[in-house]
Amino acid sequence: MRAAVKVYPEAGGTEIREVDSPKLEPASVLVKVETVGICGTDLHIYRWDEWARSCIKPPLIYGHEFVGEVVEKSSEVSWVNVGDRITGEGHIACGHCYNCRTGRQHICENLVSLGVNRDGAFADYVTLPENNVWLNDPSLPSDICAVQDPLGNAVHTVLSADCVGKDVAVFGLGPIGSMAVAVLRAIGASTIFGIGRSNDYRINLAREIGAHHTIKTSEQNVVDEVKHEAGGVDVVLEMSGNPQAVLDGLSVLRPGGQISLLGTYTRPLTVDLSSNIVFKYVTIKGITGRLMYDTWYQMRGLLRDSKFRANIEKIITHRYKFEDFHKAMGVMDSGNSGKILMYMG
Amino acid sequence: MRAAVKVYPEAGGTEIREVDSPKLEPASVLVKVETVGICGTDLHIYRWDEWARSCIKPPLIYGHEFVGEVVEKSSEVSWVNVGDRITGEGHIACGHCYNCRTGRQHICENLVSLGVNRDGAFADYVTLPENNVWLNDPSLPSDICAVQDPLGNAVHTVLSADCVGKDVAVFGLGPIGSMAVAVLRAIGASTIFGIGRSNDYRINLAREIGAHHTIKTSEQNVVDEVKHEAGGVDVVLEMSGNPQAVLDGLSVLRPGGQISLLGTYTRPLTVDLSSNIVFKYVTIKGITGRLMYDTWYQMRGLLRDSKFRANIEKIITHRYKFEDFHKAMGVMDSGNSGKILMYMG
Amino acid sequence: MRAAVKVYPEAGGTEIREVDSPKLEPASVLVKVETVGICGTDLHIYRWDEWARSCIKPPLIYGHEFVGEVVEKSSEVSWVNVGDRITGEGHIACGHCYNCRTGRQHICENLVSLGVNRDGAFADYVTLPENNVWLNDPSLPSDICAVQDPLGNAVHTVLSADCVGKDVAVFGLGPIGSMAVAVLRAIGASTIFGIGRSNDYRINLAREIGAHHTIKTSEQNVVDEVKHEAGGVDVVLEMSGNPQAVLDGLSVLRPGGQISLLGTYTRPLTVDLSSNIVFKYVTIKGITGRLMYDTWYQMRGLLRDSKFRANIEKIITHRYKFEDFHKAMGVMDSGNSGKILMYMG
Amino acid sequence: MRAAVKVYPEAGGTEIREVDSPKLEPASVLVKVETVGICGTDLHIYRWDEWARSCIKPPLIYGHEFVGEVVEKSSEVSWVNVGDRITGEGHIACGHCYNCRTGRQHICENLVSLGVNRDGAFADYVTLPENNVWLNDPSLPSDICAVQDPLGNAVHTVLSADCVGKDVAVFGLGPIGSMAVAVLRAIGASTIFGIGRSNDYRINLAREIGAHHTIKTSEQNVVDEVKHEAGGVDVVLEMSGNPQAVLDGLSVLRPGGQISLLGTYTRPLTVDLSSNIVFKYVTIKGITGRLMYDTWYQMRGLLRDSKFRANIEKIITHRYKFEDFHKAMGVMDSGNSGKILMYMG
Repeated sequence: MRAAVKVYPEAGGTEIREVDSPKLEPASVLVKVETVGICGTDLHIYRWDEWARSCIKPPLIYGHEFVGEVVEKSSEVSWVNVGDRITGEGHIACGHCYNCRTGRQHICENLVSLGVNRDGAFADYVTLPENNVWLNDPSLPSDICAVQDPLGNAVHTVLSADCVGKDVAVFGLGPIGSMAVAVLRAIGASTIFGIGRSNDYRINLAREIGAHHTIKTSEQNVVDEVKHEAGGVDVVLEMSGNPQAVLDGLSVLRPGGQISLLGTYTRPLTVDLSSNIVFKYVTIKGITGRLMYDTWYQMRGLLRDSKFRANIEKIITHRYKFEDFHKAMGVMDSGNSGKILMYMG
Repeated sequence: MRAAVKVYPEAGGTEIREVDSPKLEPASVLVKVETVGICGTDLHIYRWDEWARSCIKPPLIYGHEFVGEVVEKSSEVSWVNVGDRITGEGHIACGHCYNCRTGRQHICENLVSLGVNRDGAFADYVTLPENNVWLNDPSLPSDICAVQDPLGNAVHTVLSADCVGKDVAVFGLGPIGSMAVAVLRAIGASTIFGIGRSNDYRINLAREIGAHHTIKTSEQNVVDEVKHEAGGVDVVLEMSGNPQAVLDGLSVLRPGGQISLLGTYTRPLTVDLSSNIVFKYVTIKGITGRLMYDTWYQMRGLLRDSKFRANIEKIITHRYKFEDFHKAMGVMDSGNSGKILMYMG
Repeated sequence: MRAAVKVYPEAGGTEIREVDSPKLEPASVLVKVETVGICGTDLHIYRWDEWARSCIKPPLIYGHEFVGEVVEKSSEVSWVNVGDRITGEGHIACGHCYNCRTGRQHICENLVSLGVNRDGAFADYVTLPENNVWLNDPSLPSDICAVQDPLGNAVHTVLSADCVGKDVAVFGLGPIGSMAVAVLRAIGASTIFGIGRSNDYRINLAREIGAHHTIKTSEQNVVDEVKHEAGGVDVVLEMSGNPQAVLDGLSVLRPGGQISLLGTYTRPLTVDLSSNIVFKYVTIKGITGRLMYDTWYQMRGLLRDSKFRANIEKIITHRYKFEDFHKAMGVMDSGNSGKILMYMG
Repeated sequence: MRAAVKVYPEAGGTEIREVDSPKLEPASVLVKVETVGICGTDLHIYRWDEWARSCIKPPLIYGHEFVGEVVEKSSEVSWVNVGDRITGEGHIACGHCYNCRTGRQHICENLVSLGVNRDGAFADYVTLPENNVWLNDPSLPSDICAVQDPLGNAVHTVLSADCVGKDVAVFGLGPIGSMAVAVLRAIGASTIFGIGRSNDYRINLAREIGAHHTIKTSEQNVVDEVKHEAGGVDVVLEMSGNPQAVLDGLSVLRPGGQISLLGTYTRPLTVDLSSNIVFKYVTIKGITGRLMYDTWYQMRGLLRDSKFRANIEKIITHRYKFEDFHKAMGVMDSGNSGKILMYMG
C-alpha cells in the first residue's frame, strides 16, 4: 500500500512509498482510508523540529485525522461491521488504569497515540482497536467525518467552560481556533472575539465563521480592544500556544472567569499569581484530546445543525490528492489555510 | 392612575379603574409602566378559579410581566437612575433566609410575589424594591424587554439540564414552551420535539420557531413518534402541567436522562418509581421562577443573537392597548395566541 | 464444585449441590470464592417471589457480593495476576453502547447481572470479565473486601447529593441504609436522621453507627420529629422501597433540596407535583448500582479511615459457613441482621 | 473606646489608644467586640511592609476576625436582634454588580474590606452592614465563633475541589493550612499530606490535627516523599504563598487533578504550561474569601461534629488580653503559633 513514512531519525523529508499493509490485531478493525487531514502535529513531524526529534521514532507512518471504511474485523468485534464508514479516535488507551476506569481515557497513563507512537493514517490502510472506532451517521458528509478529531478538540475546549450566553475570547485562529468560533456560535455564546497575531487569511476566516470582533495582535492592543468592546470576557479559550496570549487572556478575563488552554507551549509562562489568579478567583483548565466519547456524542448532536455544518465546511479550505502530499504540507506550513484534507482514492 | 383591579373576593370581573398611584418605599423605585404582558397566572386571577380563590386577596392590582421607565427613586438607590428603562423581577425576596443567602432568592422562604401578594403592573405606575430591578441594554427592543419574565422561565428550565448537542422534548407549547424551543435552538440542542395536545395555532408556532418535529397528542402516540424519530431523548422539559405528559416524558427519556418540570399540576401524578426513575437512573428537577440574577445575565447574553431575538418577536403574537384589557384576556383564554402584550401609552 | 443453585422455575428451595466449575472465557478471570454476602436480591430469589419469577431463569447459581482469589486468567488479561484477591463488580456491560461510552457502564443498554442473568458467586468458583475485576488493597480486611458491592451502593447514593455539612435523612435501615449512615459520618454530614419502620435491631445498629436521631415510623410521626429536631433536611436518601417514605421524605425536605432513591418500589407513588417538587425546587435522583469505577475508587479512599472501617465491620453482624446457607437465609429473612457473610473455606 | 490604630502612613508602630466609638450606619448593626483574632493581613499592617504601604491609608483601626454582641441596630434591620452574638464577614459588597448578583459577593467589583479599607475590629466596638452579619448558633463556643473567617477560607478552599475519598496535599501549615487539614479529616479525604518549610511547631500541629504524612521541605524532597507514600495526589491546596510550592504541587499532582491557590504570592511563578497543565489536564483555581454565605452554612454544618470542633480548638494556640496586643503580635511574627486570639473583656 501507499504510505507517507518518516524514514530516518534525522533531518530530511518524508517519503511516499509502498509498504506492507498493517495486520489486523485482536479486538481491532482494518480500515481503508478515504480521506485524511493534516494536523499541526503532522507538520511538526514533517519539519522534524525539536519536539518531533524528542518524541518520534522512525520509521513511522504518521497522520491520525481520517475517515475510512472498515474492510476487515477481528472475531471479537460485534458492533462494527465491514462496510461501516468510521472515524478514528487517535488516543489508544489501556482500559485499566485509574483514568481509564474513571471516564478519562484521553489521559490514560499508558497512552499510545496513533501516528505518533504507532503507525497512523497517511496510508491506504490503518488498523485500529475497536475501542477507538467512531461510527459515523451515514448522512454526515465524508469531509466532515474526516475532521472530527480537531473539531472534537474544539468542542471539548468550548464545553470545558460555561459559554452559553457568555462573552468569550478565542486566542489563536488556526483550524481548531476557527472551529471553536463555530462551536461558540452554535451554542449561543454572546460576544465572541477571534484573536490572531498577524495572519489575515485566518483572521478573515474567523470573522466569516461568526466571530463578532477580530483582533490582530501585531497591530492592535488586545486588552484595550476587548475592554473597549465588552469590558472583559467571561471565558478565554487559549489555542495559540503563545505564553503572551495566556497573559493577555488573564488580563481581559473578568473576576471569576475561566481560561482553558489547548495550545502547546514551547516557552514557559511567567505570571503574577496573586493579581491574575487568586484575587481574580480565576479557573485555569488544561485541555487535551477529546472526552472518549462524551465529546464525540456532543459533536454528533451539534452537527445536526445545517448552519454549523456549513461553517465547518468553510474551515476546510484546501483539498489535495494524496500524491500531492508535499504540496499540501507546504500550504499547511505557510499558515494560509484552514484545515487541509487529502484524498486517498 | 389607571389600573386593572380584581375588586372583590368573589366571582366576577376585573375592573379597569382609576386608583391612587403607589407610594415610593425605602430602597425602591417608582416605575411608569410602558408595556405589560399577560401571564397564565393573570388568567387564573381573571377567571377567579380555584387556585386564585385560595391565593389572592382582593382588592389587588395584578400583572407582573412589564417594562417601564424609572420616574422616581429613594435616596438609598445608587445604581438605578431616573430615566432608566427597567424590567421587574417579580420575586420579592427577604434577603436574609437560608435560600436568599445561598444564591436562591427565587425560592426565598418569605417570598412576596408582585401582582399576586402585592399590587402589580397592570397599571400606569408600579413600585419595586431596588433588588428587583433589571437594567435593560438600551439597544434591546421594548417588546423583548417586556417578556423577560417568561423568557427567563424558559432559559432557567433549559439551562437546568445539559441540552447542548442533546435530543430534547418540550411538552406544552404555550408561550413559555415556544420560548424554550427558541432557547434550545440558540444553544445547539440536537433534535427538538415540540409536543402539544391539540392547539394547531401553538403547534405551528413551535414549528416555525424551530422545533424539528411537532407532535399533537390528541391525534398521535407521542411515545411511538419520539421513538420512531430519535429512539428517545436525553432531556424532557415538561411545561404543560399535565401529569400524563410527565408519564409520557419519562417513557421517552433515555436511561440517565433528565426531566425538568416547570408546569403547574392540578392533578396528582401516579408513577412506578422503580422502572421509570430508579433503574433508569433518571433525574427529575422542579423548576420555578428564574435564578436571581444568573438567568437574567444568561438571557441578556443570548439576546445578542439576532436570530434568537427574531424568534422571540415571533412568539409575541398579539398587541393591545391597555383599554382593550378584556379583549386581550379573551384571546389569552382562547389559547390561540403566543405571548400577548398591552401598551399603556 | 459446591454451589447454591436455584434449580427449577417454580416454588421451592434452593439446593446446595455439586456442579461443574465454570470455564474461563476470553478476557476473563477464574476466581476461587473466599467469602460471599447475601443481598436483598438473593433473598428475593430464595423466596421465589413475584420479582424473581419474572426475572430469573433456573437453573441459576446466584449470589454476587464476594471476594476471592484469581486462580486462572485468559491470555488477554495483562493487569490482573493469579493470586490477586479481587472483588467482583456484578454489572457486566457491553462496552459499546451510548451509556458505556459516556462513563455510565452501570446503566449499560445490554446489561447482564452476575447471579441474576448469569451464574454467580454462591459457589466455589466464579468466572468474571476482566472489566469487572476490582483489585483490592492487600491491607484491606477480607470481610470488608466482600461487602464493597452494597457499600458501593451506599457511597454512590450519598455522593449523588451534596451532603458535606448538610442535614440528611436516611429512610430504610437495612445494611445499605446503615452503610449510608456510616458514609455520611465519614464525609462530614451535619445532622443525620436514621429512619426505620419497626425493626429495633436495625434502628439500634443505625444509632450505633452514628445516626444522630433515629425515628421508628410505626410509633413516631417522622415529619414532626424531623421538623422538631432540625426544621427539615437538605437531603433525603430513600432506601426503604416504600412509596410512603418518598412522600415523607419530600415533606421533610427543605426547598431546593434533593432526594435520592435507591429502593426497589413494588407499589406506585401518588404525589402532588406542584407543592412537593415544582414550587419546592426539588431534585429527585434515581440511583442504581455503582459508578464503574469512580465509586470504587472513592470507596477505597474512604476505607483508609479506621473509624469508617470499624463502622462497616459493625454492620457485618452474622457470619456462617457456606454449608449453613439455609440458616443464613433464614436470619436474612427475619430482618434481625445487618450484612450476613458466608465463608466458602 | 479602646482601639489598635495604625496611626501614620509611615514606618513605626501601631498604637492602642482611646478613640470615638463608630456611629451606626443605615441597615447596619453596632457590635461590642468580645474576641478578635490576628490574621496574616494584620501582621502585614503591623510590620508596615510593601503590601501594607500600597494598600492601607492610616489612620486605620484594623482587625477583622471577631465575635461580638449586637448592642444597637438601625431600624431597617429585622432579623438581627440586640443581644445576638454574631461573627462578621469582612467582605462588604455593593450588592448590585455582576458578581454580587450572581452569588459571588466575595469578589464584588466594588469590594470594601473591613479592617483594610475601613475601620475594623481591633476595638471595643465595630459597625457592620446587616448583610455582613452571621448569626452564631448559641451553643457554639465563643472562641470558635471568633475564628470562622479563617476557617471559612479553609472550608472554601477544600470544598473548591472534590476531596472526598481523595489523596490531598496541603502546602503551607499556618493556621489556615492546619484548618484545611482538619476540614479534610472531617469530610473523608483519603491520604492527607501536610507540607511546611521548616517550622516544627506548625508541622507538629498539622500532624496532631490529623495529617497522615508531614513533610519539611527544608530537609526533605517533597516530590520524592509524596510519590513514595502515595504515588501522587488528586488535589493540592496551596496555602504557603510560595511559587516553588505551586511547582512542587503541580509535580505531585496526578493527571486530571486540581490545585487550588489560597496563598498571597509576592514573587511571580514561572511554569512550563504544556507538561504541567495542558497535557496533565490539570485545573487550577484561585481562591479568595468565603462564599457568602454558602461557605458559612457548610462550616456551621461541619462544626456540629465534636471531633472537628476539638481540632479547631487545638489550632487556637495562644490567647491574650487586648492590652497585650504588641506581645500577641510578636508571637504571631515568630511563626511559632497557630491562631492567636485576643479578648476585649
